[in-house]
Amino acid sequence: MANQLLAGKRGVIFGALDDQSIAWKVAEKCAEEGATIVLSNAPVAFRFGEIQKLAEKLNVEAIPADATEVADLENLFSKSMELMGGKLDFVLHSIGMSLNVRKKKEYTDLNYEWMHKTFDISAISFHKVMQTLWKMDAMNDWGSILALTYIAAQRTFPDYNEMAESKALLESFARSFGYHFGTHKHVRVNTLSQSPTMTTAGQGIKGFQEFFDYADKMSPLGNASSEACADYCVVMFSDLTRMVTMQNLFHDGGFSNMGMNPAVIGL
Amino acid sequence: MANQLLAGKRGVIFGALDDQSIAWKVAEKCAEEGATIVLSNAPVAFRFGEIQKLAEKLNVEAIPADATEVADLENLFSKSMELMGGKLDFVLHSIGMSLNVRKKKEYTDLNYEWMHKTFDISAISFHKVMQTLWKMDAMNDWGSILALTYIAAQRTFPDYNEMAESKALLESFARSFGYHFGTHKHVRVNTLSQSPTMTTAGQGIKGFQEFFDYADKMSPLGNASSEACADYCVVMFSDLTRMVTMQNLFHDGGFSNMGMNPAVIGL
Amino acid sequence: MANQLLAGKRGVIFGALDDQSIAWKVAEKCAEEGATIVLSNAPVAFRFGEIQKLAEKLNVEAIPADATEVADLENLFSKSMELMGGKLDFVLHSIGMSLNVRKKKEYTDLNYEWMHKTFDISAISFHKVMQTLWKMDAMNDWGSILALTYIAAQRTFPDYNEMAESKALLESFARSFGYHFGTHKHVRVNTLSQSPTMTTAGQGIKGFQEFFDYADKMSPLGNASSEACADYCVVMFSDLTRMVTMQNLFHDGGFSNMGMNPAVIGL
Amino acid sequence: MANQLLAGKRGVIFGALDDQSIAWKVAEKCAEEGATIVLSNAPVAFRFGEIQKLAEKLNVEAIPADATEVADLENLFSKSMELMGGKLDFVLHSIGMSLNVRKKKEYTDLNYEWMHKTFDISAISFHKVMQTLWKMDAMNDWGSILALTYIAAQRTFPDYNEMAESKALLESFARSFGYHFGTHKHVRVNTLSQSPTMTTAGQGIKGFQEFFDYADKMSPLGNASSEACADYCVVMFSDLTRMVTMQNLFHDGGFSNMGMNPAVIGL
Repeated sequence: MANQLLAGKRGVIFGALDDQSIAWKVAEKCAEEGATIVLSNAPVAFRFGEIQKLAEKLNVEAIPADATEVADLENLFSKSMELMGGKLDFVLHSIGMSLNVRKKKEYTDLNYEWMHKTFDISAISFHKVMQTLWKMDAMNDWGSILALTYIAAQRTFPDYNEMAESKALLESFARSFGYHFGTHKHVRVNTLSQSPTMTTAGQGIKGFQEFFDYADKMSPLGNASSEACADYCVVMFSDLTRMVTMQNLFHDGGFSNMGMNPAVIGL
Repeated sequence: MANQLLAGKRGVIFGALDDQSIAWKVAEKCAEEGATIVLSNAPVAFRFGEIQKLAEKLNVEAIPADATEVADLENLFSKSMELMGGKLDFVLHSIGMSLNVRKKKEYTDLNYEWMHKTFDISAISFHKVMQTLWKMDAMNDWGSILALTYIAAQRTFPDYNEMAESKALLESFARSFGYHFGTHKHVRVNTLSQSPTMTTAGQGIKGFQEFFDYADKMSPLGNASSEACADYCVVMFSDLTRMVTMQNLFHDGGFSNMGMNPAVIGL
Repeated sequence: MANQLLAGKRGVIFGALDDQSIAWKVAEKCAEEGATIVLSNAPVAFRFGEIQKLAEKLNVEAIPADATEVADLENLFSKSMELMGGKLDFVLHSIGMSLNVRKKKEYTDLNYEWMHKTFDISAISFHKVMQTLWKMDAMNDWGSILALTYIAAQRTFPDYNEMAESKALLESFARSFGYHFGTHKHVRVNTLSQSPTMTTAGQGIKGFQEFFDYADKMSPLGNASSEACADYCVVMFSDLTRMVTMQNLFHDGGFSNMGMNPAVIGL
Repeated sequence: MANQLLAGKRGVIFGALDDQSIAWKVAEKCAEEGATIVLSNAPVAFRFGEIQKLAEKLNVEAIPADATEVADLENLFSKSMELMGGKLDFVLHSIGMSLNVRKKKEYTDLNYEWMHKTFDISAISFHKVMQTLWKMDAMNDWGSILALTYIAAQRTFPDYNEMAESKALLESFARSFGYHFGTHKHVRVNTLSQSPTMTTAGQGIKGFQEFFDYADKMSPLGNASSEACADYCVVMFSDLTRMVTMQNLFHDGGFSNMGMNPAVIGL
C-alpha cells in the first residue's frame, strides 16, 4: 500500500510510546509513504516506553519534549528543522492523560489542580505546539496539523471522565487556530476522532474492554484499528486533502452516526 | 406576562453586575414569576457593580462568592438554603472573563497562565458550582441548572479569542455533569447559547459593535435581547421543561442555522 | 400547572387520533393554558380515531383535512380563523406515516411510489401547511409553528426505515421556511425531537418495545412522556420563546447527547 | 500527483456533463490513479453535454442511464461489470437538479409536483442506485459509495431553495444505507459537502457569483476547487479510508466552522 504519498515531506510525530500506540503506527506508515520524520514524546515516556526502538527501526531521531513546556517545543522544532533540512509539512498531536482518571477520582469529586494539569497535558499542549510553530514560522505552506480526539467531546461516556472536557477543548483549539493558520499560511488544522483503541492509555480506563466491545457492536464496520487510523492520518498529511480544515473527522466504522444498532440490544 | 411559573421555587443567580447584565434581567423575571432568589457575584463585582441595588429592589440577599473558590461556593449555598428555607430548584451560571482578551493578546500569542485563569473563571467555575451542589446535596429533585454560553463554542469568531475554548469547555461540563445529576437526582443541566448582547462584558470585545450588527442582520428575527433571554431562562427553570437535559439551546433569532443571509451581502 | 400561558392565543393542532396521541395531550394542555384551538386530522382518522370525542370534551371544533391537499388546508385555515375570530398564533404538525413500514418492506427493498407517498404525508405536508398559511397571511406576528420529529433524522435506527428520511426532510423544511417566516412575519418555526413514545403510531414499528426500553435506559432522565412533551409544546407556543427559531429541540431525557450509558451494558 | 492509489479498482461515475463538472475531474483523477471506470449520465445530458468527449479521452465507456429509473440502473451496472470484468469498488453520485429553481419559483410558492420530481432526481436516485447495487450484489467488499452534497442540508441559504431539502434527504440516505452496506458488505457510504463550485449547474442559481465570493471570503483557505474535490474523492475511494462511513465530509476551506470572518465585514 506504499504509494509514496508523502514523498519529500517532513513531519513531527508526538506520542509514540510502544507498538500499541497509534502514533507508532502513524510513524511507520509515514516513513513507508516516503516522509522524513522526527519522533517526540515526554521525557518520562522515553524512560518507560520504547520510542528509541522505533527511532532505530525507522532510522530517525527521537527528541524528548514536555509538550506543556514552550521551551521544550522550541528546541524540538528547531532541531527537527535542522535535522530534516527545512520547515515542517505535517505534525501529529497524539497526547492525552488525565490525573483524575489515573487517581480514580469520580467525576463528581474531581481535584481541580489535577484537572488543570490534565487540560494542560491533553489539550493546551496542542495550542502550545501550534503557537510555537506559528511564532517560529516553522510550517510550510499547505502543511497539515492533526490531533487525535474522541467522540466524548460531543457525547457523554461517563467513564471517560474529565477527558471529555480535554477533548472538547482540543477540538476547539483546532477550529480557532485553524482560522489563523488557514488565513495566513494555508496550513490546515483538523482533529481525527478515532474508535476506542486498545492502546496502553486506552486500557487504563475503567470498564474499557466492555466499552470497546459495545462500540465494536454498535459500529456497522466495527471499531477502526490503529493501522487504519494511521492510513487516515497519511491521507490527512498528503496533498489530496489540502482544502479540508477546521474539521473533526470521525474514523470509527460508523459509530458516531448510529442511534441504535439492533445487534446491541440482541434483536 | 407574569404567570407565576416559578411560584414556590428557590434559586441562586450568578453574574448580575449592572442593569445591562443578562443575569440582572433573569433575576427580575424570576422574582416576577414568583421565585425566591439569592444573588451572587465575585467580591470585586460587589465593589464596582450595582448588585446591591438590585438586591434592594427585589428585596433579596446578595452574597459575594468567588466562583473559583469552593469554600466561597459552600458558604453561598449553605447560606442560601438557610435564607430561603430549603434546597435549591434552579441555578444560573452567567460568569465569564478572559484575561488574554482584556490584555489584548492575539490568539497566536496567548499567555498560558492567563489562559488557565480564564478557563477557571469562565468554565471550571461551572463544574465547581455543580460539584459543590452535588456534595452538599443542595438541589431539589427535578431542579434545573443553566449556564449562559455562546456559539463560538461550535464555530470560529476570531475576535472571541480564548473565550471560544472557555465556552466549549463549559458546554462539555454541562453534558457530563448532566448525566450524573440526571441519573441520580433528576436534575437537568443545560446551556443557553445567546445572541451577542450589549452587556458591559460584551462591549469589551474588539469590533463588538460591527459584529453585533452583522449577527443582527444574519438572524431572521434579529438578535435576541437580554429580556427575551430572561424569558427563556424562566422557561428552563419552570416545570414545563423537566425532560430537557444535556442540551445546548440556541436563543439567537435563527443565527445558528443560517448559512448565508442575502441581507448580509446586500442582495 | 395552568398558568394561562396561552391566554388569548389561537391555534390549530394536527394529529390527535386517540388519547395515546401526543397531539391529544397538547390540545388538552393548550386549552388548560387558555388558548382557543381547532383540531384537525385526516378524514380517515375521523372515522377510525376519537378526535370528535376530544373536540366535545374541549368544546372546540374538529375539521377534517388531508394535509397533502392544499385545498383542504385552505378550507381548514379559513374556517379556523372564522371560528376563532382572527389569525393564528400557533400551529402544531404531528403527522407521520410510512407506507413501506406499514407494508413491512425492508430498507434495502423499498417501493418508490410508497416512498413518495410517505414523504408527502410525513414531511411535504409541513411545507404545504406553511405555504398555505403564508399565502393566506394566516399567522399573527410573533406566532409559532412547530412540528414533531425524531432523532432518526440525525442518526441511524435501522427499524425506523424511511421515516428517517421523512424526518430529515421535515427538519429541513423547518429551517428553510423559518428564514422566510422569521424575516417577513416574525413567526418562528421549530421542530421538537421527542423520545420514543407509546402512541398508536409508535407501537406499529418493529421491535418498538425493546427499543423503547433501550432509549429509556440510555437516557439519564428516562424517556420523556407525551404529557411532558405537551408541556414543552406549550412553552414553544408561549411568548417566552419568541426568539427561538429554526431549531431542532431535543426533548428526550438526555438521550441525544449520551454516547454510552453504563446502565445499557450492565456495568 | 499520480500515486496509483486506485490501481486495480473499478468504478462508476455519474454526473459528468462538461469540463466544468466535478464528476469530470473525478473521472480524470480516477483514471490517473489507475482505476478502470465507466461514465454515466442522463440521456438528455448525452445530447447536450460532452460526456462522449471525456469517454474518448479516457478511453472508457459512457452509458446513458436515467438515475430515477431502476431498469436503467440495472442495465448500467450489469454492463459496467461486464465491461470491466468484475464487481464495483466505487461509485460517485453527482446528480442534482431542481425544477422549481429552474422555473424561478420562490420557496414560499413551490409547485409540489416539481418538488417530487426534484427529490426523485437529486436524492431518491441515490437510494435507487444503492438499492440496485445491493440487489445485484454489485459491490466488492470494502467498496466505497460517495455522493456530492452541500451545506444547505444543515443551514439555510435562501436562494438554494428546495435543493436544501434534496441534500438533507440525500445525506440521510447515505447514513441509513451506510448501516446496511457496512454491516452486511463492508461497503462504506459517505457524502462530500463541497464549496460552491463554478459548474454549469451552480451558475444557474440566483445570485451565485455574489454567493461564491462571499463563501470564498468566509473560508480561511478560500473555496475548494473542483480539482481539489476530485483529489478528496480519490482518497475516499482508496483503501486508506476504509473505516470512514456514514459521514458527511466538509471539503470547503473551513467555511462550515466559521461563525464570522472579519474579512466579510470589512474589519
